Amino acid sequence: MLRNKLIQLILQRHSYLCVGLDTDVQKLPLHLRENKNGILLFNKAIIDATRDYCVSYKPNIAFYESLGSKGWDILGETLEYIGAEHFTIADAKRGDIGNTASMYARTFFETYSFDGITVAPYMGEDSVMPFLEYDNKWVILLALTSNRGAFDFQFTKNIQDEMLFETVIQKAQQWGTINNLMYVIGATKAQYIERVRELAPSHFLLIPGIGVQGGSLHDISLLGMNHDIGLLVNNTREIIYASNGEDFAIHAQKKAKGIQEEMSKYLQVRLL
Amino acid sequence: MLRNKLIQLILQRHSYLCVGLDTDVQKLPLHLRENKNGILLFNKAIIDATRDYCVSYKPNIAFYESLGSKGWDILGETLEYIGAEHFTIADAKRGDIGNTASMYARTFFETYSFDGITVAPYMGEDSVMPFLEYDNKWVILLALTSNRGAFDFQFTKNIQDEMLFETVIQKAQQWGTINNLMYVIGATKAQYIERVRELAPSHFLLIPGIGVQGGSLHDISLLGMNHDIGLLVNNTREIIYASNGEDFAIHAQKKAKGIQEEMSKYLQVRLL
Repeated sequence: MLRNKLIQLILQRHSYLCVGLDTDVQKLPLHLRENKNGILLFNKAIIDATRDYCVSYKPNIAFYESLGSKGWDILGETLEYIGAEHFTIADAKRGDIGNTASMYARTFFETYSFDGITVAPYMGEDSVMPFLEYDNKWVILLALTSNRGAFDFQFTKNIQDEMLFETVIQKAQQWGTINNLMYVIGATKAQYIERVRELAPSHFLLIPGIGVQGGSLHDISLLGMNHDIGLLVNNTREIIYASNGEDFAIHAQKKAKGIQEEMSKYLQVRLL
Repeated sequence: MLRNKLIQLILQRHSYLCVGLDTDVQKLPLHLRENKNGILLFNKAIIDATRDYCVSYKPNIAFYESLGSKGWDILGETLEYIGAEHFTIADAKRGDIGNTASMYARTFFETYSFDGITVAPYMGEDSVMPFLEYDNKWVILLALTSNRGAFDFQFTKNIQDEMLFETVIQKAQQWGTINNLMYVIGATKAQYIERVRELAPSHFLLIPGIGVQGGSLHDISLLGMNHDIGLLVNNTREIIYASNGEDFAIHAQKKAKGIQEEMSKYLQVRLL
């Protein structure tokens, strides 16, 4: 997807919401847990309920992979069901040497036609470049993640007093552009978003960690939004597991709509 | 697999060779490329030809994933064919927040019963721990990789003049033990193996990068072997693509046997 199209979708729907599709069979409503197509039916119902309120969907690949080959079929059918009017993200966090990274790129950009993939930076340039060779496809590079373990390495200061996530953000700008590179910045680390915007004023940021993980939509919107909006904010569990009754889709829609309405306010302020 | 069993296999076969099964359909011998079971037939022939000369197999998951769901079936059948007398490694380089890491662990330790999985360290402790909760299963943590991109972040010095890969090696010893944690150290970085052995004298190291990538088996054996051997040295392309004729398995065997014989010499010196 082109950057301009993504921005247009955001402005049309007054939303920069990304819905995570981390569908865990053990968390499905009971009537679907016993259905052999339960996961796909669940995903389709969530997509139908939320598509007007979000601009992106992000299946975390682990949840499909853990089902073996049938999980990959479900992933493919889910992706097809989403269609072309949402930015689709394979949350795969892949990262490997050049020839292997090319295979991963083939997986997520050809075998499955995602718009973007999350990539881990540890192995450096040649683990990232093969993904950037595709037109209109995106690398979404882990920079500052939302989890507690982020403190183990990402904040390590180098001898220029620069933290590892800062080095990652800067170095990656030699590899990709604002048209094919985003960064993952956890909402739980909102106090660093101003610094991220100094380093990457124009890039899109994918922001997980609001909701269950505790990040504030208000804070990250205030601090992270740029002249092109530049934000995709993910919510997974509060939406897809809003209820585990038969009415789960209605509750998912209500939650997604609530987030979209809050986003709409922040967009209005920004666009005044 | 228990650590003691791995050591016994090494001593029995006079080998610490790991054969990479990065089977790329485009590199198959012509007579198999046109066969719809070509990849599985190729893997089985390679396994039959090499199983006496190696102690481990390491399919890189990217090569199976890129085929969609049928690739995962091939992976499962390959794993079953290897059996229980080789240490099996899912070269997956996964790394995600806690609840997602648990799903990846389920994938590679339950849905597919690998002995170990390669894991990326960037997201820290909670991205690694779920894999360590399984008995007799291993995390093989990326520390110093064999590729050029390793220089982008892994050598970044912190304010104590310690490089990132050193921090990773030390920090991870708070998470796992010599019985469930190995490190990936690229053979192309042999000059750092002495330092790695200072930091992790007793851990097993998985060493890719001999052969096509240019690392020296002699050097890494001399510098890396410890009192329990402590090495698994991977070779992929020189073995599995030794020939692309119908006689590929004979050539693969010859190459694997040659490496095993060289390893046997280093083992003798060590065990004198």
